[in-house]
Amino acid sequence: MRYFDSSAWMRRLESEAVLPEGFQAAAASMDFVPAEKPDAGKQNMNLAVIRLEEPTVSFAGVFTRNAFPGWPVVAGRRLLDAPAVQGLLVNNRVANVGAAGGLEDSQRLSRLTAELSGAEGPYFQSSTGVIGWKLPITEMEAVLPGLCEAPSDDSLLPFARAIMTTDAWPKIRSSNCGGGRIVATAKGAGMVEPDMATMLAFFLTDVDIPRDIARRMLPEVVANTFNRISIDGEMSTSDTVLFFSSRRKPYPGDAEFRRSLTETAAALSEDVVRNGEGCGHVIKITVSGLDDEIKAASIARSIANAPLTKTAVRGNDPNVGRIIQALGAACGGSGLDLNRDVLELSIGDEAIYGKGRFLLNEEKEASLIEYLKKRELPVPPLGWPPHEECVQVTITLGDGRSSATVIGSDLSEEYVKINADYRT
Amino acid sequence: MRYFDSSAWMRRLESEAVLPEGFQAAAASMDFVPAEKPDAGKQNMNLAVIRLEEPTVSFAGVFTRNAFPGWPVVAGRRLLDAPAVQGLLVNNRVANVGAAGGLEDSQRLSRLTAELSGAEGPYFQSSTGVIGWKLPITEMEAVLPGLCEAPSDDSLLPFARAIMTTDAWPKIRSSNCGGGRIVATAKGAGMVEPDMATMLAFFLTDVDIPRDIARRMLPEVVANTFNRISIDGEMSTSDTVLFFSSRRKPYPGDAEFRRSLTETAAALSEDVVRNGEGCGHVIKITVSGLDDEIKAASIARSIANAPLTKTAVRGNDPNVGRIIQALGAACGGSGLDLNRDVLELSIGDEAIYGKGRFLLNEEKEASLIEYLKKRELPVPPLGWPPHEECVQVTITLGDGRSSATVIGSDLSEEYVKINADYRT
Repeated sequence: MRYFDSSAWMRRLESEAVLPEGFQAAAASMDFVPAEKPDAGKQNMNLAVIRLEEPTVSFAGVFTRNAFPGWPVVAGRRLLDAPAVQGLLVNNRVANVGAAGGLEDSQRLSRLTAELSGAEGPYFQSSTGVIGWKLPITEMEAVLPGLCEAPSDDSLLPFARAIMTTDAWPKIRSSNCGGGRIVATAKGAGMVEPDMATMLAFFLTDVDIPRDIARRMLPEVVANTFNRISIDGEMSTSDTVLFFSSRRKPYPGDAEFRRSLTETAAALSEDVVRNGEGCGHVIKITVSGLDDEIKAASIARSIANAPLTKTAVRGNDPNVGRIIQALGAACGGSGLDLNRDVLELSIGDEAIYGKGRFLLNEEKEASLIEYLKKRELPVPPLGWPPHEECVQVTITLGDGRSSATVIGSDLSEEYVKINADYRT
Repeated sequence: MRYFDSSAWMRRLESEAVLPEGFQAAAASMDFVPAEKPDAGKQNMNLAVIRLEEPTVSFAGVFTRNAFPGWPVVAGRRLLDAPAVQGLLVNNRVANVGAAGGLEDSQRLSRLTAELSGAEGPYFQSSTGVIGWKLPITEMEAVLPGLCEAPSDDSLLPFARAIMTTDAWPKIRSSNCGGGRIVATAKGAGMVEPDMATMLAFFLTDVDIPRDIARRMLPEVVANTFNRISIDGEMSTSDTVLFFSSRRKPYPGDAEFRRSLTETAAALSEDVVRNGEGCGHVIKITVSGLDDEIKAASIARSIANAPLTKTAVRGNDPNVGRIIQALGAACGGSGLDLNRDVLELSIGDEAIYGKGRFLLNEEKEASLIEYLKKRELPVPPLGWPPHEECVQVTITLGDGRSSATVIGSDLSEEYVKINADYRT
């Protein structure tokens, strides 16, 4: 499926954003001055809630493996043990990581949001933004009553917009599943790596999936989707994927639910890359022919993260030697022999290396430049993405049956600019 | 030692460049049109030789771990078994990696250079530059007779200039050792990572170190110097460190030789970072308090390679949360627990994190900005580096006795620009 004009993309988003039965959502906005950096002046923060009409026992979560997690991650891990929950509060701009009293702040906000929403079950709380700053609790508490007053049961779109930080467009994907739906949103544009770095994603479904199955299936699906993308190799302190079911529709069985959940998560995770900070091309690296999928994924990820491959693609320069260099480094680094006589490498449909040598000539070079140019994205983004094309790099290393694909982005001057100036 | 004006730096270089006894060097230049990319037009290539007056048995080499090494690396590994060698031919612009017939080309150039130099022992050959292109053998052979005719026994400087690619200035360091000297030069500005990526370094000494000791000591010294730097996390296909002794001066013993070799290699490897592509700050990450030096080095390297830490330093923005994030990711990724109550982190002399929380305030923020600004380097470089200052990040993780320092650079828009446009 491709969208070549903004209105088509927007129509898709609006129709996919319709909330599953039993969910409500709302968003609000406020200003504050950071205590740690008052000269930064007035900062804007969004708050957003998702509310289930009734508490649910069917919820699950996957969190960052970062050894210095944000306080909302610490609180969220504990809440997984609760018998039931009823919602979620998210703020952007301040990540609440490492700040004094940060755990108490997160838990206090959760409690207050549940109370103000008239909920019977507790709320998760997620934060994303600057690390090190303290949450502006006073200002946040002032805006909560209005936020919780009358959430809408129409659309997830205002919520999806509110949780954005450096994202250029809100990200929502959905799929039908049995008689119900799965609707999901994510934010995240930098600090995005295998382990879901600075990424928040929320999955809502009205399908009555049993709690134990949700808790087994969510990590598996995340491992094959969100953990196979990388914008900059950074694993955030705050990565969180939460899943809630309102249990209104019958469960169609594991196979169908897994297919829908995977489809939604795969599309959403690719959206995260496509909207990555300074992303000028989405690059899919497929490594196949090994006996071990984890090893294939690790090699694909090394190439997806290699700055010289990324910058070459950025320049629409088919400098294929750099892919070979990154491949050799990944194999050498992990002690895997590389058989030059078996190796095959292609970009799109063009064979680049095979039969023990580079297969390059002037014509192929020109065709590769054309291929890369067609897949370019505007940097910085001009509204919605103009297409859903990827640069496909395919590498075969032998005749093993395992393969893996990692989705990454190129590396542009804009990425550096955004991140050198992030707080100023 | 610091150099704050170009003439002081140049004077240092000229005096350090004096060749040890028994060595000669020369450089030449030529043009060619790459067969794979004729529309790139005429390209310049330098060739440079080092000649020992007599063949030596005392030589050693360390090569890249990349599983797709360049042909000169393949040839060089084989030559380590030779009883004696007499010199070295280097070219820039084309790396001779993966090109058809590349091994034969490299060996043919070695043979021809030895013949034309009237040498009795064989020559090493190293190449650096674009991966995938074939060496322009015809043009190279035409320039070899003049190059080999009358090498100078004065200075290594013309050689050091000739092997540069995107380097802004030639790199030479030396030290006295017993009654003799060690003089070394390196090239490399991008694709530089732990395993000496796209880096060539050549060590010349007149000190008569026994061959077996040289072969044991060189890898150890490289592991603690060149393998502890990283500009972009890239491991090249062509990394090579070669070592030659002319055996004119008595050997002062292992301890003294190791000290001199380490001093020279450490200074040279820091030069490589300081001249890294788009390098706007040299950053030293020291991780201490662990029981395992390899683990300390691995964590330090992860932080040195973290794009968000690098871009923040680039912007003179003490966004210390990103260092904590990178630290947490490195620990989480390697299964190491992070004890927040023990963790101490400082930048320069300023404590940033300790006693379980961030130690930040407005004044400290201002002082850190000042600290970073003072250590900035001009991007792109304006001639010689204006200073030898580093941004020092010190992290203590416990009370273990092992520590490691990795030297990296920031990440600037210039790095992306250079590497997106490298071949065009």
